Amino acid sequence: MSKQKPSLPKGTRDFGPAEMNKRHFILETIKKVYQKYGYAPIETPAMENLSVLQGKYGDEGDQLLFKILNSGDFLSKTEKTDLNSSKDLLPKIAEKGLRYDLTVPFARFVVMNQHNLSFPFKRYQIQPVWRADKPQKGRYREFYQCDADAIGTDSLLCEAEIVLMIKEVFTLLQAKKANSLDYSIKINNRKILSGLVEAIGQKGKETDFAVAIDKLDKIGIDKVKEELSSKGFDQAAIDKLDPVFAISGNNREKLQAVKSVLQSSEVGLKGTNELEEVLNILDSFGMEVPELELDITLARGLSYYTGAIFEVKPNNVKMGSISGGGRYDGLTDNFGLPNVSGVGISFGVDRIYDVLEELDLYPDNNITSTKVLITAFDQDSWNYGLKVLSSLRNAEIKSEIYPEPVKIKKQMKYANDKQIPFVIVIGSEEIKSGKLALKNMQEGTQEMLSTDEIINFLK
Amino acid sequence: MSKQKPSLPKGTRDFGPAEMNKRHFILETIKKVYQKYGYAPIETPAMENLSVLQGKYGDEGDQLLFKILNSGDFLSKTEKTDLNSSKDLLPKIAEKGLRYDLTVPFARFVVMNQHNLSFPFKRYQIQPVWRADKPQKGRYREFYQCDADAIGTDSLLCEAEIVLMIKEVFTLLQAKKANSLDYSIKINNRKILSGLVEAIGQKGKETDFAVAIDKLDKIGIDKVKEELSSKGFDQAAIDKLDPVFAISGNNREKLQAVKSVLQSSEVGLKGTNELEEVLNILDSFGMEVPELELDITLARGLSYYTGAIFEVKPNNVKMGSISGGGRYDGLTDNFGLPNVSGVGISFGVDRIYDVLEELDLYPDNNITSTKVLITAFDQDSWNYGLKVLSSLRNAEIKSEIYPEPVKIKKQMKYANDKQIPFVIVIGSEEIKSGKLALKNMQEGTQEMLSTDEIINFLK
Repeated sequence: MSKQKPSLPKGTRDFGPAEMNKRHFILETIKKVYQKYGYAPIETPAMENLSVLQGKYGDEGDQLLFKILNSGDFLSKTEKTDLNSSKDLLPKIAEKGLRYDLTVPFARFVVMNQHNLSFPFKRYQIQPVWRADKPQKGRYREFYQCDADAIGTDSLLCEAEIVLMIKEVFTLLQAKKANSLDYSIKINNRKILSGLVEAIGQKGKETDFAVAIDKLDKIGIDKVKEELSSKGFDQAAIDKLDPVFAISGNNREKLQAVKSVLQSSEVGLKGTNELEEVLNILDSFGMEVPELELDITLARGLSYYTGAIFEVKPNNVKMGSISGGGRYDGLTDNFGLPNVSGVGISFGVDRIYDVLEELDLYPDNNITSTKVLITAFDQDSWNYGLKVLSSLRNAEIKSEIYPEPVKIKKQMKYANDKQIPFVIVIGSEEIKSGKLALKNMQEGTQEMLSTDEIINFLK
Repeated sequence: MSKQKPSLPKGTRDFGPAEMNKRHFILETIKKVYQKYGYAPIETPAMENLSVLQGKYGDEGDQLLFKILNSGDFLSKTEKTDLNSSKDLLPKIAEKGLRYDLTVPFARFVVMNQHNLSFPFKRYQIQPVWRADKPQKGRYREFYQCDADAIGTDSLLCEAEIVLMIKEVFTLLQAKKANSLDYSIKINNRKILSGLVEAIGQKGKETDFAVAIDKLDKIGIDKVKEELSSKGFDQAAIDKLDPVFAISGNNREKLQAVKSVLQSSEVGLKGTNELEEVLNILDSFGMEVPELELDITLARGLSYYTGAIFEVKPNNVKMGSISGGGRYDGLTDNFGLPNVSGVGISFGVDRIYDVLEELDLYPDNNITSTKVLITAFDQDSWNYGLKVLSSLRNAEIKSEIYPEPVKIKKQMKYANDKQIPFVIVIGSEEIKSGKLALKNMQEGTQEMLSTDEIINFLK
């Protein structure tokens, strides 16, 4: 065994206790909301057969899959001719890959368990995924996804509940009331986009249209029109979009305006009707969601969406979307099970982490860490401390004793470094009186209290 | 995209909602106890550089590491001569591997973060590991480990607290009081084993001794003696062990008996003194641990242990050890940081899962799942149900409405399949009276209650 300076694979990260506490806050919040809305947890293995993964994410995705070398003498099943190129050799020496997202494993899970599942099936899944992307700021090769999907129903209740879940997650994440995250829940419907293309007589150019209109925010109306023109949209068609670009008002007003443009498109009107129904269900719930904003320029890249699409954008932090999702029709088509419709949402943990950090929104109390440290001047005090510790733990208070009666300063430093909010100090005086010194580490104050009083105070 | 029947890589598993709920119960229990004792969470990446992993688990372990193929044109950096054998080719085409346990990644973490950590450092880590083992009943290629380690202190408080944590975990896991798990926490000390070998004049044969005596339970005294003889222990030496084999009584009595054999061995007496101190600390805590059993035949395979060793054995279920650990001295030696002593414990989640299943120890209530389903006879009732749902969720009750007012039987089946314990039924009568039917699905009973009464009842 050689001695070496260890390192981490690029694009991967360790999480220490302080980061874990913040991530825990985010993940537990999302989990709690998913459960509250009836989504049940599942987990799938990190490895999937490459036959399951390949061909699902496009050519670029196939490149970015991490492949696992077959165990043992992996060359034994290869021929000389396989060795000419990586492309030829790959399928002979690797049969498994790491999960690239949670959607394809979920589709596989549904197909393999279709006879045991009760539909509608609502599941959430919070696990890491791996992509051999070029690492850069905010982009990692291992990162968590937090997905919830409801499949086997086309009820628009699911869409409305996704809006409510998003609102609830971001409300709970703003634990510190002093600051706040200003955000929009943007909603659109793919059928509206298709309808617009149809209504202006350019059917078949849906993708070019979506790519161009998606940039409206960044480049403005004129540049979007230029791009459409360069993609072969004729001028008359482009002009027909003017009322769309001029749309304003609240969500209901916007929908009316879009409808007037879409009069000739059956699919387009189906899209507006769906969104209207989502707004109606939200009204029935009696929930106000002022953050919800119909944005008919929202397109989202993933081509498998067929109905409502969502995206959450922070408005007071410079950051891309922190949550997104939508309705799809063919989740399990690739695995021979057609017509499985569903709708899903995903929260971007790493970006949310950065947003909360920037706005200083994390709660002050560390959820996972020790609440009180017992320190002792000498061996007798330490032995006495063990009994105090026992009482604290019996009262379910997260507590520790410094493992040896070393210099108090060193014990205090430990509490400080670990951000333990309270310290009990025990010396011979304290044993005699039964009143222990309880120090508040943040405020620097100190009180003399009995063990019972300390327990009552800390609970 | 071809259609295909999807499958799972062998040795891996999906966890559906029912299994997740049970696993969640186990993992949250362990996590809660670790936190209560001041252990803080960390997480490390699934992938490590092979330079970190290789040479740490013996030759067999190196074989069982899952290796990740380099991305892109992985053959581009190879020479013709590398292609002759898998062994030559491997280091040229794979630089990363999957985590094989949590100990080596923890050691790497400690070395890389040594200047930011405050010692003693107490961390827990609950993550999956991967081994290319031959899959068989109860042995998987992906499984969770749940480790806690305290490093940078040799205080025997850590050993005593490990005993207490084990007891607390298994007390909390027996939520159903009707049944119970009978188990022993076996404890020994590697120094006692070394001392015995020294005391009988066979220094240098520690491993053979440990391997033989470890089988005492299974093969009996005579066979153990035979094995020792076959490994070159002389008869006089073997006879000196008779008082050891005859040891009985409580833990203090056993320690006294071992001491008398170990009189000539400094290291051996250090071992008995350490165990005595652990018993003393437990006494100071005022905690009774009748499950704790000194077993001087306990050896544990892993050679890096240097002090106390632990193992938890169920007595009323046929199953190997369900938890184990011990003290080590050279955690980070391989990475150039010497003298890092520590002590750790690990719980075997998969085995504990099976034990709780066999003894029917899981709590009846499903922690993660929906508590009440709202069902509706018609569209009006469904719309009314949305308001009820909103009230339930405002009261933090996990609740759902069936997404459409289909036949009540179908809605009931959904509740049944999902093991939802309560169902609210809404029809025109209910809307008129404001009293809703609350069905208890387990007992088959039904009551007419207002929304507020239902909330009070379910909270």
